[in-house]
Amino acid sequence: MNSDCNLTISLDIMGGDKGPLITIPAAILAIQKLPNLHLILCGDESLISQELAKNNLNDSPQLSICHTAETVEMDELPASALRNKKDSSMRKSIDLVRNDKAQACVSAGNTGALFSMAHYVLKMLPGVERPALISALPTHDDNRHVFMLDLGANVFCDSNVLYQFAIMGSVLAEEVDGIESPRVALLNMGTENIKGSDHIKFTAAQLEANPYINYIGFVEGNDILSNKADVIVCDGFVGNVALKTCEGVALMVYSKFKSVLSQHMFTRLLGKFFASTIKKLFKSLNPDQYNGASLIGLRGIVVKSHGNASSLAFLAAIMEAVKEVERQVPDKIRKKLEQSLAD
Amino acid sequence: MNSDCNLTISLDIMGGDKGPLITIPAAILAIQKLPNLHLILCGDESLISQELAKNNLNDSPQLSICHTAETVEMDELPASALRNKKDSSMRKSIDLVRNDKAQACVSAGNTGALFSMAHYVLKMLPGVERPALISALPTHDDNRHVFMLDLGANVFCDSNVLYQFAIMGSVLAEEVDGIESPRVALLNMGTENIKGSDHIKFTAAQLEANPYINYIGFVEGNDILSNKADVIVCDGFVGNVALKTCEGVALMVYSKFKSVLSQHMFTRLLGKFFASTIKKLFKSLNPDQYNGASLIGLRGIVVKSHGNASSLAFLAAIMEAVKEVERQVPDKIRKKLEQSLAD
Repeated sequence: MNSDCNLTISLDIMGGDKGPLITIPAAILAIQKLPNLHLILCGDESLISQELAKNNLNDSPQLSICHTAETVEMDELPASALRNKKDSSMRKSIDLVRNDKAQACVSAGNTGALFSMAHYVLKMLPGVERPALISALPTHDDNRHVFMLDLGANVFCDSNVLYQFAIMGSVLAEEVDGIESPRVALLNMGTENIKGSDHIKFTAAQLEANPYINYIGFVEGNDILSNKADVIVCDGFVGNVALKTCEGVALMVYSKFKSVLSQHMFTRLLGKFFASTIKKLFKSLNPDQYNGASLIGLRGIVVKSHGNASSLAFLAAIMEAVKEVERQVPDKIRKKLEQSLAD
Repeated sequence: MNSDCNLTISLDIMGGDKGPLITIPAAILAIQKLPNLHLILCGDESLISQELAKNNLNDSPQLSICHTAETVEMDELPASALRNKKDSSMRKSIDLVRNDKAQACVSAGNTGALFSMAHYVLKMLPGVERPALISALPTHDDNRHVFMLDLGANVFCDSNVLYQFAIMGSVLAEEVDGIESPRVALLNMGTENIKGSDHIKFTAAQLEANPYINYIGFVEGNDILSNKADVIVCDGFVGNVALKTCEGVALMVYSKFKSVLSQHMFTRLLGKFFASTIKKLFKSLNPDQYNGASLIGLRGIVVKSHGNASSLAFLAAIMEAVKEVERQVPDKIRKKLEQSLAD
């Protein structure tokens, strides 16, 4: 490792639909962008060396290889991956974080397996019962994101878990997006106090009583992207359905527009212009295509890139990991939890 | 009542954001459209008479008035409305169904109050534990709807309730949209058998074992509008969030497009054309703006129009009620449940 590199991140090179074909070009872009970044490439050594040789990078002080013989398949059961794939590129990239050889890891592999392995290997921060999958979604305001969690790591979450998620989400919004006193909301089926299940009402009461969290109340599905809140908290089932519903509606609007555009000679001429605009809009509604989701609540930083991410999208996931390392997100979460639970 | 009228529907004239201003014009349109329709207008008699007089309809054999002195407010608590508003237009319109004076009722009033009153007054069909709010949403295919339930009448639903909803939804899709052997799916956070909570997996097993239901498995949020299924079943919390997320994304796309269109001189010229197209698309994603949602599982037909429905939207809700009367939906649900539970 180069002594000038003060940032080390491990990459699961074999994970994702296209594995090394997209992860290696992303790694190369990342080190070109950040001279102080050192990447540990976990995966098949001969394959990685071959790719690096093509770019004359075999001797780069910013890159090293951690050979692994196994790969976690995209459809593999999490329990089976956890038990049987100890020499996989995914597992090794997490082990490197556990053993303080890397400050964060990034994978585009099987989400369930990544969750199980990271949970098992890294363990939870004190005061956290469950890790959450969190991502920044676009809002009506082009300059602001909304951080939503949990996006599917946990089917059901009780009120304590939701409360911890709210605190964790607030820290991420503050540290990663630089939002002062982020507006935190609970996703519910109505905004009145009487709405929703008992455990959501209980979480609301806990958040109202926490002076360190800017809790703004309940929001409904139509306000997820409306920039009413900076952090939206829900259980993994609801979050997953809501996120995928966003993608589905965006896709439907896209396909309907394409069909409208093709109906008129007049508009066909403009098709290309509008198609690219709609495509861009659709992409902005499908955030894990371009950005990384994070598994937070762990004693280490784990960023999950979308399985079919492009090199640029995987690069964005690496940059997300860099930001979380620089902002020391797990440490900030630990402190905010201590503060909140001490009161 | 005119002896030529073989169809009687009671209307909550005072319900909704604009009450009689939209419900009376809708009633007039409905009787003009269907000469065999008799409507009982529940609400303030002098106000209704006055409106009918303006249209020379005070002596119409197709219209009668049921005077009520109270109105359920849009923000009234359901329990309070149930206890205190026995002489309200909403309650009377339901009572008329209970007493066989009307075959269905339609209201644009407070959803929670309507649910509580209908549940209390009409009671459940045998074999049904909870009523569900169901609506037809648009799909990628302009000629097909997807019926989604529950949309918010019940926060949490156990596996038996979800199973009953699947049967009820299948009947509605078959009878109202004429779909033979409707494809029924459960909304989940993944399509693999291992995904989701235990109660959803149990419902899946129950549906797989039912030869009278065309159960096709799990679908995810991005497939709600993709025309993969004709009926999508979930609990009221998830359904409500998913439906409102659809509205929110459509609104965001609409506002982003408007801003894109206004940026270029070239596209500003086309703004009007595209704005109306996007508006139409947005409306099609906001189904309760133009159509009625039904409360099903009750011993009577109750159609809920959106609170800020226009006259045409309230007319659509009346037509939905007519269709359910003609197709004898509660009776068909009762039979399908008997058949399913007997096996």
